[in-house]
Amino acid sequence: MIPRYSRPDMVAIWEPATKFKIWYEIEAHACDAMADLGVIPRENADAVWKAKDVEFDVARIDEIEAVTKHDVIAFLTHLAEHVGSDEARFVHQGMTSSDVLDTCLNVQLVRAADILLADLDDLLAALKKRALEHKNTVRVGRSHGIHAEPTTMGLTFARFYAEMDRNRDRLRAARAEVATGAISGAVGTFANVDPAVEEHVCAKLGLTPETISTQVIPRDRHAMFFAVLGVIASSIENVAIEIRHMQRTEVLEGAEFFSMGQKGSSAMPHKKNPVLTENLTGLARLVRMSVIPAMENVALWHERDISHSSVERAIGPDTTITLDFALARLTGVIDKMLVFPQNMLDNMNKFPGLVMSQRVLLALTQAGVSREDAYAMVQRNALKVWEERVDFREQLLADDDVVAALGKDAINEKFDMDYHTKHVDTIFARVFGA
Amino acid sequence: MIPRYSRPDMVAIWEPATKFKIWYEIEAHACDAMADLGVIPRENADAVWKAKDVEFDVARIDEIEAVTKHDVIAFLTHLAEHVGSDEARFVHQGMTSSDVLDTCLNVQLVRAADILLADLDDLLAALKKRALEHKNTVRVGRSHGIHAEPTTMGLTFARFYAEMDRNRDRLRAARAEVATGAISGAVGTFANVDPAVEEHVCAKLGLTPETISTQVIPRDRHAMFFAVLGVIASSIENVAIEIRHMQRTEVLEGAEFFSMGQKGSSAMPHKKNPVLTENLTGLARLVRMSVIPAMENVALWHERDISHSSVERAIGPDTTITLDFALARLTGVIDKMLVFPQNMLDNMNKFPGLVMSQRVLLALTQAGVSREDAYAMVQRNALKVWEERVDFREQLLADDDVVAALGKDAINEKFDMDYHTKHVDTIFARVFGA
Amino acid sequence: MIPRYSRPDMVAIWEPATKFKIWYEIEAHACDAMADLGVIPRENADAVWKAKDVEFDVARIDEIEAVTKHDVIAFLTHLAEHVGSDEARFVHQGMTSSDVLDTCLNVQLVRAADILLADLDDLLAALKKRALEHKNTVRVGRSHGIHAEPTTMGLTFARFYAEMDRNRDRLRAARAEVATGAISGAVGTFANVDPAVEEHVCAKLGLTPETISTQVIPRDRHAMFFAVLGVIASSIENVAIEIRHMQRTEVLEGAEFFSMGQKGSSAMPHKKNPVLTENLTGLARLVRMSVIPAMENVALWHERDISHSSVERAIGPDTTITLDFALARLTGVIDKMLVFPQNMLDNMNKFPGLVMSQRVLLALTQAGVSREDAYAMVQRNALKVWEERVDFREQLLADDDVVAALGKDAINEKFDMDYHTKHVDTIFARVFGA
Amino acid sequence: MIPRYSRPDMVAIWEPATKFKIWYEIEAHACDAMADLGVIPRENADAVWKAKDVEFDVARIDEIEAVTKHDVIAFLTHLAEHVGSDEARFVHQGMTSSDVLDTCLNVQLVRAADILLADLDDLLAALKKRALEHKNTVRVGRSHGIHAEPTTMGLTFARFYAEMDRNRDRLRAARAEVATGAISGAVGTFANVDPAVEEHVCAKLGLTPETISTQVIPRDRHAMFFAVLGVIASSIENVAIEIRHMQRTEVLEGAEFFSMGQKGSSAMPHKKNPVLTENLTGLARLVRMSVIPAMENVALWHERDISHSSVERAIGPDTTITLDFALARLTGVIDKMLVFPQNMLDNMNKFPGLVMSQRVLLALTQAGVSREDAYAMVQRNALKVWEERVDFREQLLADDDVVAALGKDAINEKFDMDYHTKHVDTIFARVFGA
Repeated sequence: MIPRYSRPDMVAIWEPATKFKIWYEIEAHACDAMADLGVIPRENADAVWKAKDVEFDVARIDEIEAVTKHDVIAFLTHLAEHVGSDEARFVHQGMTSSDVLDTCLNVQLVRAADILLADLDDLLAALKKRALEHKNTVRVGRSHGIHAEPTTMGLTFARFYAEMDRNRDRLRAARAEVATGAISGAVGTFANVDPAVEEHVCAKLGLTPETISTQVIPRDRHAMFFAVLGVIASSIENVAIEIRHMQRTEVLEGAEFFSMGQKGSSAMPHKKNPVLTENLTGLARLVRMSVIPAMENVALWHERDISHSSVERAIGPDTTITLDFALARLTGVIDKMLVFPQNMLDNMNKFPGLVMSQRVLLALTQAGVSREDAYAMVQRNALKVWEERVDFREQLLADDDVVAALGKDAINEKFDMDYHTKHVDTIFARVFGA
Repeated sequence: MIPRYSRPDMVAIWEPATKFKIWYEIEAHACDAMADLGVIPRENADAVWKAKDVEFDVARIDEIEAVTKHDVIAFLTHLAEHVGSDEARFVHQGMTSSDVLDTCLNVQLVRAADILLADLDDLLAALKKRALEHKNTVRVGRSHGIHAEPTTMGLTFARFYAEMDRNRDRLRAARAEVATGAISGAVGTFANVDPAVEEHVCAKLGLTPETISTQVIPRDRHAMFFAVLGVIASSIENVAIEIRHMQRTEVLEGAEFFSMGQKGSSAMPHKKNPVLTENLTGLARLVRMSVIPAMENVALWHERDISHSSVERAIGPDTTITLDFALARLTGVIDKMLVFPQNMLDNMNKFPGLVMSQRVLLALTQAGVSREDAYAMVQRNALKVWEERVDFREQLLADDDVVAALGKDAINEKFDMDYHTKHVDTIFARVFGA
Repeated sequence: MIPRYSRPDMVAIWEPATKFKIWYEIEAHACDAMADLGVIPRENADAVWKAKDVEFDVARIDEIEAVTKHDVIAFLTHLAEHVGSDEARFVHQGMTSSDVLDTCLNVQLVRAADILLADLDDLLAALKKRALEHKNTVRVGRSHGIHAEPTTMGLTFARFYAEMDRNRDRLRAARAEVATGAISGAVGTFANVDPAVEEHVCAKLGLTPETISTQVIPRDRHAMFFAVLGVIASSIENVAIEIRHMQRTEVLEGAEFFSMGQKGSSAMPHKKNPVLTENLTGLARLVRMSVIPAMENVALWHERDISHSSVERAIGPDTTITLDFALARLTGVIDKMLVFPQNMLDNMNKFPGLVMSQRVLLALTQAGVSREDAYAMVQRNALKVWEERVDFREQLLADDDVVAALGKDAINEKFDMDYHTKHVDTIFARVFGA
Repeated sequence: MIPRYSRPDMVAIWEPATKFKIWYEIEAHACDAMADLGVIPRENADAVWKAKDVEFDVARIDEIEAVTKHDVIAFLTHLAEHVGSDEARFVHQGMTSSDVLDTCLNVQLVRAADILLADLDDLLAALKKRALEHKNTVRVGRSHGIHAEPTTMGLTFARFYAEMDRNRDRLRAARAEVATGAISGAVGTFANVDPAVEEHVCAKLGLTPETISTQVIPRDRHAMFFAVLGVIASSIENVAIEIRHMQRTEVLEGAEFFSMGQKGSSAMPHKKNPVLTENLTGLARLVRMSVIPAMENVALWHERDISHSSVERAIGPDTTITLDFALARLTGVIDKMLVFPQNMLDNMNKFPGLVMSQRVLLALTQAGVSREDAYAMVQRNALKVWEERVDFREQLLADDDVVAALGKDAINEKFDMDYHTKHVDTIFARVFGA
């Protein structure tokens, strides 16, 4: 966790105090279920709830752990200090530490997913707003970084929206993947704890009982979870790189927000760096790097080994915190980013009209000109535009062969921008609904 | 693609002939749609279907490509050789190469997914069969590679079943991710091709029109697809490692199939190597290695750059072919694997009865013995078992303090295996349905 | 291996015929050493050399392997068909298959490294040529994609040279990592084969005896080897991205080679796509993806398991072939790439003179102007340049406060390009030697 | 950084206070060099050294950064608070923030490498001690987890020693990779700062001047550095997995240290879990996950973009801290690990004498028995051992055909353990020197 790339709500999920609170809830609900089953006395189950509003003392638990060398036992010892050691004697009965640890981890991941889902909602809102705003802001489309045909800035925002919308669906599915709990004992046989306990605890915590567990919840679930975070991060990178390109000095079709008036930066108005989106590019790498270790965690030995644990201690907090920060940062960037429509037009006309050359070529062949002749006609005019930056349309209108083939009206019609934007409504309806 | 790790049906999907066939279908359906729209003459659209049963000549297309330096143009030129160059002159009108290439790639990935889904079905059937067969075959559960408490071999197969069943769901979702097509032109605006063409082609090919494309179909879809393959591979590794452990000389609770009678291997009966599952462990790494490149492919420049293409030329075939082979190999291993129940019992009783020591300890404290005294009682008897391999139950029955605390019946009851298997039915019902 | 991204010399290293030839040499040299030790008769060792010029029949060996299910035995059987089965009966005595397989793999990797080293030499030569050619071609340096201060195109080529030169050193070290052989028997104890055999075979094949092997040569060596290939690939990406940026329509400071005269492309002169460097970007991902599996291969069980083998069957050929192709492709791109010095100047002067604003600001404060006042002076002039694209120097010369602070000469001096290039010689001497 | 997997010396390198101290040294030495060049007054350079023993106030610097939004400016402002704002006015002159940041990062990485090198020395010492101790402790070698031929525990330790020794060489090379500094200005041209400054600062800090930098030191160096850490981590995993296997209940040839007497654990003597080596297996994944992001960092845009920065803020500390902890933990494990020679013999004799069957087979064929007959002879006796666990040697001695072929002495000789250990000295001499 890097403080500057962290936001408090997500950080809070991973704090020891939160963890102990969840452990407490698991144990207390388990006691309730065991009392219902008649396995432990009802009054002992009730007694545990005395600690309902306790803020557990993390330092004290650490102190006990230093002696017991076992985190769950340390917590239970501390819990007994609140509940009374006699009253607490049935807590955790028949359970194994992993029942608590794994169910807790999944509660944390579910909560993290909820924050990330809200982050995605915010990002989607920002993207939609900007898409609608620039629905018809014409801009040249580029393949290979080279001008191709016109498109609109709104379509760019709309495609990022559609991509993030898919990510929302993926994240919902990923949330469901890890929304399971297990209270199944040392090797998952429920030998010492009835399945009803698992059912009760899971219901109370908003989880589904794991279909079949060993000592642990199977790690293919977590692998899938982190893989989805990796895909979302890659989409963030996709948006970030678009903005970084837009802000290049030579392109300058958009920029991360800055205020011209502000002191300092304004002394060098050309030197506004897209540092936020560059940062997002790096953060995407950080999120993505958890994917392979999460997959390597799947193959545990027999009913469990603990190799996954250190990995999760790192990537659990780090990856969700980083992604939360990145999504929020991207939302801010999108929300306020500067768009420069005039520069878009200027760029498109760097070689005036040349962006329409393919359409003219097509028209000539469709008008019956041989492929070879059509090429020659386009080429001689295009090269002049390329070399002398004269206007392509004017060149064509002055070329007798072209005029003979197409007529002046048809030539002019090839430079009609509406031709390229005529289906924007259709696409927007697909992306945002009718 | 490594021939020895390849199966013909999956290989066929990626052969040039298949690709050209799909290209052909895309172009022919597109012509139909354009004829419906009145954009091209109906007879030209009809003429294209003359090539319906043609086996395209890959060598000839390569030959043309060597001149044109463009694969789609080479194909179209060859197509015209079959259809007639005049009849073919409206083929591909208004389309861009990527319309064909990307839609084709997704058709191939969908077909690959279908094979992989069938593979998973076969694997699930094998796992279920073995789970039912060994539902009550008792075996020691192990955490950290160390004996913990009894479980059954059926539960092991059942958890692999549940894991692969999740993988089937994931793969279905992944299939849907890539089951889209796009015929949207040079920058995705449909400037030169009506959206109805895309709709028609997609419907005919079993695809959904991509919500919004640029020159290409967005690559977050493919990143998700390959991530799911990576998760499945990790599950394969999980199963493979279990079997490799079972086959260790010292464990020998199971083995890849071999026939004792067969010459050669039988000269050294102890030297049956789990080479298939070791191989699967390596294949899992190969499948997984495509995940990060697929994610790096997401961030393309503007309306597309071609950096993703070389990556997909490799991982498209290699990853699906390898995973198909791995799933089939694993199915064979599971289907025929040898299980040695007697060795399972022998292993569990390596230190006779010691696997029940935790349960005895619990019983003593529940019977009111102080934690300290209970430890001492268990310890003195357990150590004797550990050091002299005497029987734990007999030791306990001969220990007056233990007998005083629990009684002989209760001691004996702690060694009842049914205690550990009593919920196997419940778990099987969860996994396989009632 | 993707044929279009493959070159014959590297492909040849990985062909079955090559492999069998190396196996043959290992076996034949081993026989010599055993004869020298008196372990086998000299005439049998001599007899093996009868097959020295034989082209082994790969199809025949495959045929035998189909029966024996063992590749090395199949080869030895075929070898006996050439040498005579009686004469060949001591071949491979006391050796294990891995002795042959692992030593062969390392011979192949060493040969691959030699090709890659030659590739790097070619690339370095091309980079040096272009660096010297454009040593003083002024161009704006950019941080964050934003104009910073002037530099030269030669420095760009020179830094790529320095980076690739480091890669050459790394590759030499990586070659040494895998230049070992092992003939040490089933578990590496030399129980059945004298260490002198290993020494002799290694000496003949240009390898060093592995310090200590098990059944296999330790895989940390190969992990290191592939890690270095991954770094080289990342450097290729670094160069490729620079060129892709240079070729953007708006930047156009350089381009992959094309000839204006050539038909086809010249009809749309603006549409020259940097497809080779985009392709290199993708190929870099492919090379890099072998790094993690190669590292996962290090941890083998005890004296070996075979999980590494399938991984190496794929990444051995694929990674070296792809990198060889990529290096050669990059060399071609560098060698012939078009550089447009006038566009470099035009870009630098997009906001005329503004690139010098920082230097002017510094000069003002050094001249004793307060930081605040200096900012104000630069700001008011810079904004005019930014908004109206007037000339910054002229603005400053017309600003009484600035002139009062610096004097006209000093103002003019701040726009002297030599100021920025004065250490180019120093840097070139560092990179290329005095 | 996870506190429980961190050691203070490595953590200290990455603390803000350390960073500011290094920044200070860079700036102070740079001032000296500039004074030597006559670029700034000597007294100003001297004044900076007044802060030599200052503990910089991190909270104060953070406070300033909250206003200036720039870390280096915040530090310089704070420095001026110590040195005097007039005296400090030439500090950082002509330099760019990256000059300080990148040179500092490399100082930190070099210091981290030094700690890691010391860690490796400790690990090597422990491995050597245990290798010598168990040089002749016989143990069965295993391929595929299956008994193969005898080896010794000393050879196992020795091969880990050799592997870690290679890692030491690699780490030394990696240290040299990052032991460079750069003070070259905004785009690396030394326009505003003389190369002599860079030379002086580097000499003082134990670095080499970077051959050619842009705004940043090239990131192929750091990619290589982290790749080497990834290889070392993979070797740690290799050792860890060996120990985990040794500690399996069924194998029990070795174990992480525990004291039988200690309360708690001794109640269940069979339940000693190899949690340290399992933890190391996970930590290896964490170290390895930095490799790909470090490689993705290489391709920066033009003279730099800042995408690498967030990655390095994470992996710089996390990876070095984790690896330091892992190496130290492994050293402790090796140093104190329990080795159970009797269990090694018992395991080897699980099927008494069967481990020698291959040698007997070889002897029979060398004695002139046909391959087929030899197989039959070994098979009938081996199967009895396999099924009834009788002694293989005794079976052979009672088999007339075998005795006829080999004689009793030769049969007995095949079971001589010295045959397998006769080259242990040779191998030890290779690994540890004569």
